[in-house]
Amino acid sequence: MYREQIKVLDCTIRDGGLINNHYFTDEFVRAVYLALSKSGIDYMEMGYRSSKELFPPTDYGDWKYCDDSKIRKIIDGIESNVKLSIMVDSYRVKEQEFTPADESPIDMIRAATYVKYIDSAIELVNKCHDLGYETTVNIMAISKEIEPDIVEALKQLADTPVDVVYVVDSFGALYSEQIEYLVKLYKKYLPGKEIGVHCHNNQQLAYANTIEGIIHDANYVDGSLYGIGRGPGNCCLELLMGFLKNPKFDLTPILQVIQDYMLPMREELEWGYIIPYMITGILNEHPRLAIAMRQTDQKDKYAEFYQQIGDSLD
Amino acid sequence: MYREQIKVLDCTIRDGGLINNHYFTDEFVRAVYLALSKSGIDYMEMGYRSSKELFPPTDYGDWKYCDDSKIRKIIDGIESNVKLSIMVDSYRVKEQEFTPADESPIDMIRAATYVKYIDSAIELVNKCHDLGYETTVNIMAISKEIEPDIVEALKQLADTPVDVVYVVDSFGALYSEQIEYLVKLYKKYLPGKEIGVHCHNNQQLAYANTIEGIIHDANYVDGSLYGIGRGPGNCCLELLMGFLKNPKFDLTPILQVIQDYMLPMREELEWGYIIPYMITGILNEHPRLAIAMRQTDQKDKYAEFYQQIGDSLD
Repeated sequence: MYREQIKVLDCTIRDGGLINNHYFTDEFVRAVYLALSKSGIDYMEMGYRSSKELFPPTDYGDWKYCDDSKIRKIIDGIESNVKLSIMVDSYRVKEQEFTPADESPIDMIRAATYVKYIDSAIELVNKCHDLGYETTVNIMAISKEIEPDIVEALKQLADTPVDVVYVVDSFGALYSEQIEYLVKLYKKYLPGKEIGVHCHNNQQLAYANTIEGIIHDANYVDGSLYGIGRGPGNCCLELLMGFLKNPKFDLTPILQVIQDYMLPMREELEWGYIIPYMITGILNEHPRLAIAMRQTDQKDKYAEFYQQIGDSLD
Repeated sequence: MYREQIKVLDCTIRDGGLINNHYFTDEFVRAVYLALSKSGIDYMEMGYRSSKELFPPTDYGDWKYCDDSKIRKIIDGIESNVKLSIMVDSYRVKEQEFTPADESPIDMIRAATYVKYIDSAIELVNKCHDLGYETTVNIMAISKEIEPDIVEALKQLADTPVDVVYVVDSFGALYSEQIEYLVKLYKKYLPGKEIGVHCHNNQQLAYANTIEGIIHDANYVDGSLYGIGRGPGNCCLELLMGFLKNPKFDLTPILQVIQDYMLPMREELEWGYIIPYMITGILNEHPRLAIAMRQTDQKDKYAEFYQQIGDSLD
C-alpha cells in the first residue's frame, strides 16, 4: 500500500513503558531511535510527560516524564529524520511544563483522553499548538462509547487546531467492520483533519485493524517493535512495514533491533497473545482484571477466569 | 456473527501433527475430542490418511494414517455430535484404503491438492463420494497461483460432487482484500458449492482473514487450539469462537483444554508468531527456508535471514 501521506509512529518506548514502569535503559532507547532512523519510520514516541506530583519519580523511570534534556541526550549525534512525540494524559495535567517547540527536541504532543475528558484534551491541544507543536487527540476506549457522545466530542475537536484524531481500541475489542465504521465517522465529523488508528492485539487483530484503517484513509498508524505494549501489546511495526511498500522504508534495521533487544527483553517482560487478555478483548473489557490475575499463581487458569469475568458482568 | 450454516473444523491434530511427525498421545487426542464435543464444534480433523509405502510407520505417529480402528479407540464412550474428518494428499494416493462411510467413524474426507494436481483431487472426491463421505477439496498455496489456472480448476470442480472447496493460504501471505477476492471468485465458479477458508498465521492475519471469509459467505472455517500448526500455526479456534456468537458454542471447555494441554505442549513444540515465518509470509514463500533456519544456531538471526531470502528471490 503506497500512499505518501501515511505516517508511521513507533510507540515501543511509550506503550512498552506501561509494562516496566518506564524503566528502559538509555542504551535501548538509543538503539530503537537509531533503528527507526535507518528504517525511515516517521515518528518515535519517547514516552509520557506525566506530572511528577501525581507520579513521583521514585516510582517510575525517565520515560514517564520525557524531559527535553533527557531526550536530547538520547538522540545526540544520530543523524535522523524521525520526528519525536510524547503523550500526555490530558486529564492529568498538573504542573508539567512545555517549552516552545522550537526550543524542544519534541515535534508532536499527543493528548490521550477519554470522551468524557475531551475538554481537557482541547485545552492541552490549544496550548501545545500555540507553542508550535504538532498535536493529536487520542480518544481511548472508543469501543465503550456510545455514538452520540463520540459525535459530540468529534464536533468539538473539529473546531480546534488539532492535526490528527485517533481511533484508539484500548481494549482490543474491535473487529475490522467497526474500525471501518469509526474511521468513516471520524472523517465525516472532522473535515480537513487527519485520522489515526492505534490498535491493541488482544484478539490478534491489531495489524489487520490497522490495515483496515489505512484502507479507509487513516493516515497515522501506530506500531511497536515485536508488538511490545501492555498485555497483548500493539500492532507489530515489522508487520506494518511489510504492508507499506513505500521504498523509503527498510525492514532490515527493525529486524536487527528486534533480534538484538526485543527477544532478550521478552524473557523478562510479558506481552503478546495471552489468553486472559484475549478474554477481556472479546468481552470488550479493560484489561485490568487480566493484569491482576497474571500476577497470581492462578495466571493460567483460563477457564475459571472466563467464568468469573463472565459472571461479574451479568 | 450468527449464521447457522457456518461449520467450524478443528485441525489441531492434523495440522499440529506436522510439527511432531503426528506423535500425539491417545490421552491428548481424546481430551481434544472431548473438549470439542462439549464446545459444540462441528468437525474434528484427526490427521492424514497417508500411504504407508510412501511414509513408513517407523517414522511417523498414528495420526499420519488415521486408521479407522485407531479413531474408534479414541472416541469410544464419548457422547458427541462432532463429525470426524481426515485429510488425504490427493497426489500421494497409493495403497490407502477407504471403507464405505457407513462402516467408518469418519464423516468427511478432505482432499489436499495444488492446482496442478486438481485431477487427482477430483478422482479422490469421486471415489469418496461414492463411498458415502462428505468431501472437500483444499487447494493449497493459492497465493502463488495465477487466476486462469485457478478458474480452470474451479470449473472442473464445479462438475464434481464435492461439497466444499477451500481457499488455503498455505504461506500466510494473503491480506483480507485478497481473501475477499478469492472467496468471491470461488463462489462465482462453484454455484451450489460451499466455500471454506484455511488460513495460516505468518502475519497475524489468520483470524482476521477467516472472519473476512465468513463475511463473504464462506461457511466452512478451520481453526486449531491455541493456533497450533506448522510454523506460525493457524487461526486460533478460541478466537473464532469469540466471533461466532451462535449459542451452540461454549468457549469454556476449549479454554480448559488449552490450559491443561496446549500450554505444556508449547514448552516442547514451537509454533506461533516467529519472525522468520513472518518474513516468508510477507514474501509469499513456502516456509521451508524458515523451518530449516529454525533448526540451526542462527535461528534468531532475523535480519540476515531477510537479506538472504530477499537476495535468493532476485
